[in-house]
Amino acid sequence: MISVEEARDRILADLQPTPAEIVALADAWSRVTAAPVTARLTQPPADVSAMDGYALRAADGTLGTVLHVIGAAPAGHPFEGTIAQGQAVRLFTGSVVPTGADAILLQEDATAAGTDVTVNEAVTAGRHIRRAGQDFAAGDAVVPAGRRLTARDIGLAAAANHPWLAAHRRPRVAILATGDEIAMPGEPIPPGGIVSSNSHALAALVRAAGGEPVVLPVAADTREAVAAVADALHGMDLLVTTGGASVGDHDLVIESLKTRGLKLDFWQIAMRPGKPLLFGRLGPVPVLGLPGNPVSAMVCSILFLLPALSRLCGLPAAPPPTVRAIAGAALRANDHRADHLRATVRIDPEGRIVATPFPVQDSAMLRRLALADALILRAPNAPALPEGGEVTVIRLDSLGL
Amino acid sequence: MISVEEARDRILADLQPTPAEIVALADAWSRVTAAPVTARLTQPPADVSAMDGYALRAADGTLGTVLHVIGAAPAGHPFEGTIAQGQAVRLFTGSVVPTGADAILLQEDATAAGTDVTVNEAVTAGRHIRRAGQDFAAGDAVVPAGRRLTARDIGLAAAANHPWLAAHRRPRVAILATGDEIAMPGEPIPPGGIVSSNSHALAALVRAAGGEPVVLPVAADTREAVAAVADALHGMDLLVTTGGASVGDHDLVIESLKTRGLKLDFWQIAMRPGKPLLFGRLGPVPVLGLPGNPVSAMVCSILFLLPALSRLCGLPAAPPPTVRAIAGAALRANDHRADHLRATVRIDPEGRIVATPFPVQDSAMLRRLALADALILRAPNAPALPEGGEVTVIRLDSLGL
Repeated sequence: MISVEEARDRILADLQPTPAEIVALADAWSRVTAAPVTARLTQPPADVSAMDGYALRAADGTLGTVLHVIGAAPAGHPFEGTIAQGQAVRLFTGSVVPTGADAILLQEDATAAGTDVTVNEAVTAGRHIRRAGQDFAAGDAVVPAGRRLTARDIGLAAAANHPWLAAHRRPRVAILATGDEIAMPGEPIPPGGIVSSNSHALAALVRAAGGEPVVLPVAADTREAVAAVADALHGMDLLVTTGGASVGDHDLVIESLKTRGLKLDFWQIAMRPGKPLLFGRLGPVPVLGLPGNPVSAMVCSILFLLPALSRLCGLPAAPPPTVRAIAGAALRANDHRADHLRATVRIDPEGRIVATPFPVQDSAMLRRLALADALILRAPNAPALPEGGEVTVIRLDSLGL
Repeated sequence: MISVEEARDRILADLQPTPAEIVALADAWSRVTAAPVTARLTQPPADVSAMDGYALRAADGTLGTVLHVIGAAPAGHPFEGTIAQGQAVRLFTGSVVPTGADAILLQEDATAAGTDVTVNEAVTAGRHIRRAGQDFAAGDAVVPAGRRLTARDIGLAAAANHPWLAAHRRPRVAILATGDEIAMPGEPIPPGGIVSSNSHALAALVRAAGGEPVVLPVAADTREAVAAVADALHGMDLLVTTGGASVGDHDLVIESLKTRGLKLDFWQIAMRPGKPLLFGRLGPVPVLGLPGNPVSAMVCSILFLLPALSRLCGLPAAPPPTVRAIAGAALRANDHRADHLRATVRIDPEGRIVATPFPVQDSAMLRRLALADALILRAPNAPALPEGGEVTVIRLDSLGL
């Protein structure tokens, strides 16, 4: 058996980001940049006013001076002339500061009368002027490569004048459930059978992580049926398998896919739930074999598939994000397997995150998993921890998982 | 001027969730349920084994007993007969426990030889048996209404045998930018003009919040152009406007849309950045008018549009999620306007969130907004706070915003 960390490291070391494709800015939210976004213009392109008011020469902006307003420059309509001594131009936020002016008289500090304006508060040269390039200059890399684009990044890329962006292609993830007993939701259920849940949960997780799931038909528990999957993998970036039971399926998947050239990396992890895990390659396609138990499959997905998807998407190789929390109940000493306790989360009066494990951690309880807000990580051989002790958790509620 | 909280309450009070539609389970991730998901079957449907091993009568499971293995029940293939005294049936995780059996002998506690198996560890009646309905029973509401579906929920809905789910329709949000100076990215930029960024950032935010953005063509700064937008709103659940400057646009939007029946609710908020805000109705369509300044528009979106979208999606009316953090720098006393400081976030050695505001908070700096991990909320008239003091922040990095 190997550790969770070693397994994850070995998986991540074997994966490469997908190649780039060009996506429209309007479709680029949450995509991962494959190249830096470099500003194609300078923002602001010229010195502009930060306020509504008047442009003038600072030397003219003394208390009580009356200036002649020679024009207006609404945003988008720059004033073409030059401001001379004794003159002012009406400006608005974002208006280009006209040639000759080096100060802004705020609207609330001015009294307008016909074409005259009186200075009621002395101005300071340069104040309320946003300098050309204050936000960014042409050539600046405003968004780095390898970043999952936020709404703000999209706005910034737009402002930098990019209608198209280079993003890593969404990884295509084939999902294979095996098992004679598995029926798709809404279809007739065979005797002793169960409804497929793993494929759909995994497909949703792939979507949540920015991938494109391809749910393959359920393969019967025969070597031929499973081996035939090898023919369905053209263009896939990853094959994820999951079975109906926790051990036998892996044997079948391994045996069957070995007949088609599967190179197996490992398949036993010192963890709970989810000990049996397979990683290998079938030709060019990495293969991640998850346990068939739904809770184990989901926990293993969070620990291994999610980081794998991030890596394929072009993000750095990293474990799932964790935060520190306070244990809401005493925790028993752990055995040699890393444990992942399903827990609810509340915020205590001091604003701390309190994670309380469900008293029963049966790995068949999908409903309880769905109700969990977090997984409490328990290291191998972790000693008992009193209520109030510090734990590390993976928040599930904020990840769409 | 009214407070941020009052403005948000008034907006939310005026909005209703969109009606339900039927979505395929495979498309339902991150959608909001419009009805509870009620289990159509019992899970597990019968008593099943939690481990690989043998089913037997507990009375037979004493140390050293040799039992006759009369069959096997792989998952999906229940054993049809009845187990009598001295008999056992081979089982796997998930296998239905045959009639007559009430105990499980673990595989690792047994020695198999031909059709015999020897008990090496005494069994306990009922142990390692998952009872019918342990996860859920037919008729249980396994997912409540008004929940944004996680990957785990999708798995649970599948297990409950639902190929279709009732979800609130994605709110359709029309986005209108006004301003003569605005060019779309990649298109010719007029003199003194800027590239449209708000529409694209807002469209991405609408997507992040589960809505469907409809970006309208930029309206010129004329009453006719803006008023014509009223004709483009059929089927929209919300109109969001944003202009190129911070005050004049609202005047134009208000004047123009009033000619088409706009009922105005309010438009001045005691906040920074983003004082001018408009809310009203144009016929059946709620109208949210954001400031034109990109940073102000985005901050107002997070404070008002995001909760509005959540409400339209069918989630409870609520402010954006906040967490407590430690100020990474001393904060000045605040004036009468609620402030929203753009800040970076780091985790200190004690695991606390430390939010440090950028030294310059100019509302024209979109690049800095994109780099921010959080907004530090400063209440009106908040006193000065030393470095290390407690603040409330909205995390931006985890929301895709």
